[in-house]
Amino acid sequence: MQKAAVTDYPVHDLIRNRWSPRAFSDKTVEPAVLASLFEAARWAASSYNDQPWSYLVATKDDAENCRKMLSVLVEFNAKWAKNAPVLAISVARRNFSHNGTPNPVAVHDVGAANAQLTAEATSRGLLVHQMAGFYHDKARKEFGIPEGWDPVSAIAIGYPGDPQTLPEDFRKSELAPRTRKPIREFVMTGSWGHTAPFASK
Amino acid sequence: MQKAAVTDYPVHDLIRNRWSPRAFSDKTVEPAVLASLFEAARWAASSYNDQPWSYLVATKDDAENCRKMLSVLVEFNAKWAKNAPVLAISVARRNFSHNGTPNPVAVHDVGAANAQLTAEATSRGLLVHQMAGFYHDKARKEFGIPEGWDPVSAIAIGYPGDPQTLPEDFRKSELAPRTRKPIREFVMTGSWGHTAPFASK
Repeated sequence: MQKAAVTDYPVHDLIRNRWSPRAFSDKTVEPAVLASLFEAARWAASSYNDQPWSYLVATKDDAENCRKMLSVLVEFNAKWAKNAPVLAISVARRNFSHNGTPNPVAVHDVGAANAQLTAEATSRGLLVHQMAGFYHDKARKEFGIPEGWDPVSAIAIGYPGDPQTLPEDFRKSELAPRTRKPIREFVMTGSWGHTAPFASK
Repeated sequence: MQKAAVTDYPVHDLIRNRWSPRAFSDKTVEPAVLASLFEAARWAASSYNDQPWSYLVATKDDAENCRKMLSVLVEFNAKWAKNAPVLAISVARRNFSHNGTPNPVAVHDVGAANAQLTAEATSRGLLVHQMAGFYHDKARKEFGIPEGWDPVSAIAIGYPGDPQTLPEDFRKSELAPRTRKPIREFVMTGSWGHTAPFASK
């Protein structure tokens, strides 16, 4: 299923076509495609080029690893994410590698890497659904995430599936229109609360 | 100047061509183009669709506002960012709007919105250079950023300029090759430290 954003101003198809589904096809994501997704994450911008991101990834053919991934998700998410052919967790390094001091934008930069991964996925007909709802401590324990690194988001990746395969409650939100507040509500100039003229439509 | 990433695995041109320059042309960014950049940020994914991002933006034609923006940057950044035709600050809302509890991925989601803004910019021949180096308290004061919102990154936006116009030290890094650690160093499976097979090239 496609669900292009209905935008107020034109944007590139990679932006318009990105959305977070819960229905995934059981089609496998080829290893070469997966490599390109993480290559896209690799080239994100980061403060001091610190690249404070790492990923743990499980593919459907690795049942044991998938089971572990699913066990880390809150049940609400595990219920639909179990159908995704690829699951991952993004992890942020808390301190800069060049001097060990706290990196105040580590999580921001992981967000950018995840968005680049997602754009690459969109360009290949894949969809990505990120989740904040997972057990961080359990993820740390199950995957041996070391001190100094923090789990940030869980990620489901796959080709679009049929919304009709979803349970009723998920199906409804899968088919609901996509909504966002307009840019005039969050793009300001000069001082807080003053909409930028170019955003005022 | 273009500076496409030399990648180990193929990625989309919007990913490959994104980089963070310090030389900007003095060409104006049209209001309609700016609107599309923030429209791209608008459609980023966010936890609970909370959209925890806001932006303060200054364009070159608004001298007073640009002066304020530059005064907020650390001097190292102000030195080159003064030539960018557009400067902005991204801001994250600390708590969810639906229930007021802390949003643990607010800064992550602002990172994703900034990355989508950057992808849209790249698609239009623009370049974006984000900075962590600015005075947060001063930004809060100068722009009236309210309690509950935190400045995250400063952002320079514009068309590519001529590296020869930069001071010596900046020119060197402008012309230096782009580097990243390979994905085999940060894409793991099963447990921490085990490279995922698809990433092992």
